[in-house]
Amino acid sequence: MVTTHPWSPVEAATAGGPDDDKFHEECGVFGVWQSVDAAALTALGLHALQHRGQEAAGIVSLDEAGIFHAHKGLGLVGENFGNAKVMAGLPGRASIGHNRYATTGETALRNVQPLYADFEFGGFAVAHNGNLTNAHQLRRALVRRGCLFQSTTDSEVFVHLVAISLYSTVVDRLIDAIKQVQGAYSLVALHNGALIGARDPLGVRPLVLGRLGAETGRAAGGGVLTSETCALDIVGAEFVRDVEPGEIVVVDDQGVRSIKPFGRQPSRFCIFEYIYFARPDSVVEGTPVYETRKRIGAELARESGVAADVIVPVPDSGVPAAMGYATESGIPFELGIIRNHYVGRTFIEPTDQIRHLGVKLKHSANRAMIEGKRVILVDDSIVRGTTSKKIVEMVRAAGASEVHMRISSPPTTHSCYYGIDTPERGKLMAAQHDTAEMARIIGVDSLAFISLDGLYRALGKPARDPLKPAYCDACFTGDYAIPLTDQQDNNERQLSLLHAVS
Amino acid sequence: MVTTHPWSPVEAATAGGPDDDKFHEECGVFGVWQSVDAAALTALGLHALQHRGQEAAGIVSLDEAGIFHAHKGLGLVGENFGNAKVMAGLPGRASIGHNRYATTGETALRNVQPLYADFEFGGFAVAHNGNLTNAHQLRRALVRRGCLFQSTTDSEVFVHLVAISLYSTVVDRLIDAIKQVQGAYSLVALHNGALIGARDPLGVRPLVLGRLGAETGRAAGGGVLTSETCALDIVGAEFVRDVEPGEIVVVDDQGVRSIKPFGRQPSRFCIFEYIYFARPDSVVEGTPVYETRKRIGAELARESGVAADVIVPVPDSGVPAAMGYATESGIPFELGIIRNHYVGRTFIEPTDQIRHLGVKLKHSANRAMIEGKRVILVDDSIVRGTTSKKIVEMVRAAGASEVHMRISSPPTTHSCYYGIDTPERGKLMAAQHDTAEMARIIGVDSLAFISLDGLYRALGKPARDPLKPAYCDACFTGDYAIPLTDQQDNNERQLSLLHAVS
Amino acid sequence: MVTTHPWSPVEAATAGGPDDDKFHEECGVFGVWQSVDAAALTALGLHALQHRGQEAAGIVSLDEAGIFHAHKGLGLVGENFGNAKVMAGLPGRASIGHNRYATTGETALRNVQPLYADFEFGGFAVAHNGNLTNAHQLRRALVRRGCLFQSTTDSEVFVHLVAISLYSTVVDRLIDAIKQVQGAYSLVALHNGALIGARDPLGVRPLVLGRLGAETGRAAGGGVLTSETCALDIVGAEFVRDVEPGEIVVVDDQGVRSIKPFGRQPSRFCIFEYIYFARPDSVVEGTPVYETRKRIGAELARESGVAADVIVPVPDSGVPAAMGYATESGIPFELGIIRNHYVGRTFIEPTDQIRHLGVKLKHSANRAMIEGKRVILVDDSIVRGTTSKKIVEMVRAAGASEVHMRISSPPTTHSCYYGIDTPERGKLMAAQHDTAEMARIIGVDSLAFISLDGLYRALGKPARDPLKPAYCDACFTGDYAIPLTDQQDNNERQLSLLHAVS
Amino acid sequence: MVTTHPWSPVEAATAGGPDDDKFHEECGVFGVWQSVDAAALTALGLHALQHRGQEAAGIVSLDEAGIFHAHKGLGLVGENFGNAKVMAGLPGRASIGHNRYATTGETALRNVQPLYADFEFGGFAVAHNGNLTNAHQLRRALVRRGCLFQSTTDSEVFVHLVAISLYSTVVDRLIDAIKQVQGAYSLVALHNGALIGARDPLGVRPLVLGRLGAETGRAAGGGVLTSETCALDIVGAEFVRDVEPGEIVVVDDQGVRSIKPFGRQPSRFCIFEYIYFARPDSVVEGTPVYETRKRIGAELARESGVAADVIVPVPDSGVPAAMGYATESGIPFELGIIRNHYVGRTFIEPTDQIRHLGVKLKHSANRAMIEGKRVILVDDSIVRGTTSKKIVEMVRAAGASEVHMRISSPPTTHSCYYGIDTPERGKLMAAQHDTAEMARIIGVDSLAFISLDGLYRALGKPARDPLKPAYCDACFTGDYAIPLTDQQDNNERQLSLLHAVS
Repeated sequence: MVTTHPWSPVEAATAGGPDDDKFHEECGVFGVWQSVDAAALTALGLHALQHRGQEAAGIVSLDEAGIFHAHKGLGLVGENFGNAKVMAGLPGRASIGHNRYATTGETALRNVQPLYADFEFGGFAVAHNGNLTNAHQLRRALVRRGCLFQSTTDSEVFVHLVAISLYSTVVDRLIDAIKQVQGAYSLVALHNGALIGARDPLGVRPLVLGRLGAETGRAAGGGVLTSETCALDIVGAEFVRDVEPGEIVVVDDQGVRSIKPFGRQPSRFCIFEYIYFARPDSVVEGTPVYETRKRIGAELARESGVAADVIVPVPDSGVPAAMGYATESGIPFELGIIRNHYVGRTFIEPTDQIRHLGVKLKHSANRAMIEGKRVILVDDSIVRGTTSKKIVEMVRAAGASEVHMRISSPPTTHSCYYGIDTPERGKLMAAQHDTAEMARIIGVDSLAFISLDGLYRALGKPARDPLKPAYCDACFTGDYAIPLTDQQDNNERQLSLLHAVS
Repeated sequence: MVTTHPWSPVEAATAGGPDDDKFHEECGVFGVWQSVDAAALTALGLHALQHRGQEAAGIVSLDEAGIFHAHKGLGLVGENFGNAKVMAGLPGRASIGHNRYATTGETALRNVQPLYADFEFGGFAVAHNGNLTNAHQLRRALVRRGCLFQSTTDSEVFVHLVAISLYSTVVDRLIDAIKQVQGAYSLVALHNGALIGARDPLGVRPLVLGRLGAETGRAAGGGVLTSETCALDIVGAEFVRDVEPGEIVVVDDQGVRSIKPFGRQPSRFCIFEYIYFARPDSVVEGTPVYETRKRIGAELARESGVAADVIVPVPDSGVPAAMGYATESGIPFELGIIRNHYVGRTFIEPTDQIRHLGVKLKHSANRAMIEGKRVILVDDSIVRGTTSKKIVEMVRAAGASEVHMRISSPPTTHSCYYGIDTPERGKLMAAQHDTAEMARIIGVDSLAFISLDGLYRALGKPARDPLKPAYCDACFTGDYAIPLTDQQDNNERQLSLLHAVS
Repeated sequence: MVTTHPWSPVEAATAGGPDDDKFHEECGVFGVWQSVDAAALTALGLHALQHRGQEAAGIVSLDEAGIFHAHKGLGLVGENFGNAKVMAGLPGRASIGHNRYATTGETALRNVQPLYADFEFGGFAVAHNGNLTNAHQLRRALVRRGCLFQSTTDSEVFVHLVAISLYSTVVDRLIDAIKQVQGAYSLVALHNGALIGARDPLGVRPLVLGRLGAETGRAAGGGVLTSETCALDIVGAEFVRDVEPGEIVVVDDQGVRSIKPFGRQPSRFCIFEYIYFARPDSVVEGTPVYETRKRIGAELARESGVAADVIVPVPDSGVPAAMGYATESGIPFELGIIRNHYVGRTFIEPTDQIRHLGVKLKHSANRAMIEGKRVILVDDSIVRGTTSKKIVEMVRAAGASEVHMRISSPPTTHSCYYGIDTPERGKLMAAQHDTAEMARIIGVDSLAFISLDGLYRALGKPARDPLKPAYCDACFTGDYAIPLTDQQDNNERQLSLLHAVS
Repeated sequence: MVTTHPWSPVEAATAGGPDDDKFHEECGVFGVWQSVDAAALTALGLHALQHRGQEAAGIVSLDEAGIFHAHKGLGLVGENFGNAKVMAGLPGRASIGHNRYATTGETALRNVQPLYADFEFGGFAVAHNGNLTNAHQLRRALVRRGCLFQSTTDSEVFVHLVAISLYSTVVDRLIDAIKQVQGAYSLVALHNGALIGARDPLGVRPLVLGRLGAETGRAAGGGVLTSETCALDIVGAEFVRDVEPGEIVVVDDQGVRSIKPFGRQPSRFCIFEYIYFARPDSVVEGTPVYETRKRIGAELARESGVAADVIVPVPDSGVPAAMGYATESGIPFELGIIRNHYVGRTFIEPTDQIRHLGVKLKHSANRAMIEGKRVILVDDSIVRGTTSKKIVEMVRAAGASEVHMRISSPPTTHSCYYGIDTPERGKLMAAQHDTAEMARIIGVDSLAFISLDGLYRALGKPARDPLKPAYCDACFTGDYAIPLTDQQDNNERQLSLLHAVS
């Protein structure tokens, strides 16, 4: 079978099936330098970042003889790195790792990161979170030059650019490569001499720097680069700072060095990290996520209050906003919907005969909290709307007298091309319908989204300045800050790549 | 390898590892009569009961030609019954199914229920939740008579007793068998003619009767027997009533028939179903579980209030009690501990080097909610105490100024022999230490359990009458209502059974 | 799915697919008493007997504490017993094992022998080669009595008969059981005290006794019971004698004891063991098999010589007879057909488009030995005739000027009910057609089978006495010496058994 | 784990374990152009070439839209291409395939051929049999240029050389690449427009051209390129001719085109193909292999006759030479050793206790043919000598009065660097010992090898001309016709490559 590169949202649209009605982060990264347990810490870090990708995981370590070791596998971190034998095969004091999100079919092992290559100067491994928007174009040029591609990931473009760079040091080659790519990304790279982190010029995707401390039993000086602070917490590392937009951070035995090849850049951090992607216990760009979500919920209550008996979150992601809404409104918060966590990656496919029962494998109504009540459901977003519709039906069947829905993000009207798996526009409910129509389709008595200004306010910012917005909010506004180069020739050509079964 | 029968808590003590510090329900059952989608409904019902057993699942169906079909497998319901081909192999309008909890090593497929046998009168399948306390003794007598045993489950004793009974009808044979066994159990059985349910004379384990209604598109008259009401909800069945203690319910094409071979019995329902086992959206013995847990939390707040800044549940089971505690005390409820649901059945085994970091794979502290605060942790029980200790360490490391722990059950001082997987007494923290010592070991500033009378009060009962208690509360009191026949000769002999690798 | 018991040749008819055009032995057994390496010797013995069954293998060992251990698996002996960990789980100085032939679908692990049961007197394991012709009838009576069957093998009938016997010693119980069964079988059994072997009253299936000697580094006195002498050779055991028809041999620490509950019996040994089943290096009933096959080939040359340029065996089984034929006739013997041994148990299923090429995965013509020559093909038997036809086509396509076929057995006109997997009569080519028609269908210039008397002569016997034949030759004559009890009610009823997927 | 490239015989020395005491061919190739069943024919062809490699198999097909499809897997051809679904995924009228021999550990799927790459001009797939002797050197230069390697196979060097060539047509690029490599190889390549075959300038490894004919139901004109004629036979293709040394053959819709970039070359075909590698029914360089082996046996009898009672081949490879020896000497040929074909790729690992029994899993003595006799064992070669020693012990234990060994090749005193897996010199018995010593170690009464001149004579050639030998016979003479470039720097450096677990 022939597959096409998954960077276009067209292909990604079917990911996860119609029920999996969320935007999805495409990756998490983790790297550590100078720790006695480098690969084990990396595994723990990736476990803490599991919400950013469940399809596959990979770890590369670098031993003290300068030899690289790797293990990759489909599935969860714990499934792949949960035994002593695998970990014993990953010796050394430096390591990087990667979690991958399950997008479309093409989940060949060869696409699992980190990628590794032998260069003239030695081994080089890289893992990245995000998406290059000119990868297609660069790839064609590289193939024309005689480069052989083995995967369909845009990360491999990076590796080839580093390989053919005429600069001599690894860092100079990496800068050379970064200057040629467009896109939203955070990457960690490892060579025999340093751990390197880099963030795209607008800082769309997150990357933080941490320090392994004396209290965790290791010599001071160990450095960590990872997507979120929750991965620092699990390994007992201290948060130092966010890597800055466009910054390259080099962690080696001399300490931490910062390079800013693009000069100082205005930040356009992804606003959806606050709403849904980041783990509630992470601190993102200086703000604790859980509290932020509660503030968003409170703002939502102020903007669009309605008389009701009970606030019910759509679990798990709607919980903090619902708590904030409840506190602000004074209406009781109850777990009126129970989530079944045993669904996992294999489901019961409903047979035709029982399809009429509705798909309720993940959620069930807690009837005692709902029956005869006016219910406000709080959720973080509406993507295709299919799940929202089913949840409303379930809540009505459990006897709710009224059902109102409140959403802690503005309407998601545009696809993301910056590393988030989103449906194409035609499938985004808010791109096709206004709020009143959506309410009717979903079957609620009222529907409200937080306003864009309300969201900025909850994040402690002034109202959005259209000329200089503080965040990347393209999914709400269509204001794409980074050029969509590949997307423009997407309809003209398709990149064919052999499907090798592994 | 030779294995011994897992009915003694001695062997069960190591189940799940030291982290899995809870009592565990050992099974869930589901049966349906007269439905076009019998096996599919059974799969859905078992999915809703997945919290009662994750080790293995099995379904038997009976087709319209009177032929039985079966499928069993290790793992979750969705993993085993999640494809059309398997379901197509389970035709018919009647079906029973079973979830099994992961106890010790002996998880051979031959032990997975339902059990099936060919009798002279035709096929017979049975699945049960619970434990027979004289199974060992009965088994020895049956072997002496020439019966061959193929599994190590006490369910097989039932099947042999039915097989050798001199009565002629299936129901009479089943009654004959039930009269010979002691124990706490709920069972569903299927033969060519009826679905049968039975509950032990004291009604220790739960069993409910439901009716498939016209609104779900099926002819009225379909009957369901299952462990909890949440399994009725998922298949759109209407709750009819609890099966009574000692009652046998026969569901056939004529309707529902009730037989009470033991006369009317006083109930001794398992009090721990309210505290932890049942799903929060189930209604148990007439009471919604979620609300009951909130009431227990409120009672706990009244009994043992303490000044604090925040109420933090140990997720997920501690959440409703913590909400009740917070409402009653007026102290804010916050998700100060985040649970990572990706741990699943495979974990990262910490290497020696990182063991000092503490095992925090399932839980992480939400530092922003904890730092500098006086925290009340609310949990449902303390079994070995190992997990509680780690959670307290984690909360302190996140900067809590004080940590108080409140437990929504009395101290668990005795093992259960009635179908619950519990450690032997020597490993129950509350059997070895008083509350003050426990507080010191766990590392909290204060520790309190709800009183037994407080618990009864929260359940809407008068104070416990020692001569006639309303519940089976042996784990708190050592008052074992059903004789522990096997347990008494347990030290003398061991039942050897061949370990056949399947 | 419901399966029926595979003892009727009706069901077995499709086994192995149309290419697998041979009769098939259904099992091999091996048992050893008093050896330091009992299970390992058993694995080696089963490996030497692999030609008697490739579907599954099982070994039970008995350790010095009297505990039984078992391992069973689908596939070859080497696949199941080829690692140290499995073998370490089978400790002890006594062991029995079994190879199973791949018949129809029902290859559930529960049917793999040895069977094991806990009796009042302790553990008991049994493995058998052959078929009981009244198993069906006995089984019905046992089920009526309340016995529960777990497998579809007739071996389990034995175990139940032993279990319910009123005699007290194991040997007496076994004799009691043997007296109730009809059929052709050789069995080995193990209990805590002895290794027991038994052969049916007519001695249809083979069983030999061997002794482990000092030269193999073990104390003298170790005993072996197995299907063929090639299994004695591989473990360095000395051949003692054939077990006699109807004899029970008990090997214990006191030595070897013989019991003949049926008195002295006339032998009716299976004549097909000489022709095809036994391994060429075995000595069967005092006669080396390889030499016997050569003598049969020589007799065949005398009976039905024809002018030709080359004798070509159908490999591998036709080789010795072809060598005898060549020597007797003076025509050169050449490997004109090459066998590809990599076919194994997975084949390339020819697509529709290439089916016209003919299925030649196992055999290819060695054109240089065939082109322009008059070829005599020598094979051991013609069952359905499908393979013979393809081989003749292949030889003609390689340029043979004439093709004659000579068969080292008489025409196989009847099904076997004594432990051999054969098609039903309607599919046996020789039951439907005379030799001239067969020659025409297969496409040869001439076809001849050895005569029955010629076969007896080659075996050193006088011409067949119809009243008292020296062998069981029912497949050539229809003279069934043992009653076909089950076969007679076969059309009336079918034994239903649940299909448990394992 | 880091692995080194397996082209040095040092690493290959341990392949297959000490028992697997043969030289091993490292690959078989097959390609077809213009056939309705291209991938299915390729699977059949690879099945016929299975003796050339059992580790892994791969097939690439090219469909009529110009899209490539691939499937690869570890194990036998039948295991990987034995189902309709896989074959349906390989559509098209052109295909190439490859069998890989099991060398050392590094059997990652990424090393399985055919290799495929996207070039500017479109897709390109290649599979080769043989070894490049300057691959290491070329690879270093390519890496220096910025090429990224993904496998450890030297085939990938080819692909990169084609990718970076400045020529424009595929054939010119391939010639450009071939001119830069040294070594012994035969390759098949496929692009959208032609099937291409190429043989190294000395023609060391075999490659034949065939034509699919009208009689097989396809339009005339289909072309096949493959390692041996037995693969033509299985697909019903007609043998056209051997590809010549240094020749490039282009099969496209215009027919067959020949290019000889090296001019006419003297042939140095691998003499061991006659002795052991090729299948007996193949015709190699115009000579049927089976007859050749018989002639070698006859020559061996003339050179080193000895009085004996029986000629016994070491099966299966020694059979034809033994037949030739027997005919020439007049001593009877008997199958005195039986080979057990069920050993497969999983064995019983003998436990320490039974190791003294000797490893006799593959061979057993047919005692009746050996006892009391003077035996001449005929085998094709002695590599390490370990297996020969065990076989002699076994034959003596079966009662042979004398054991003589005759070998149908000269002593193998040198390693092969041209695509054959051989031990390093230090482990070649004939490199360390003279014939008399070898006889003593192996334990025979006499030992003789055919002389080099005798071997040439049996092949119909005059005595070997040391200045211009007709064959590559480096393993007997150390006369390496192709420079061993990599081998020379082998001790200085090691090529490190990341071990990616797949």
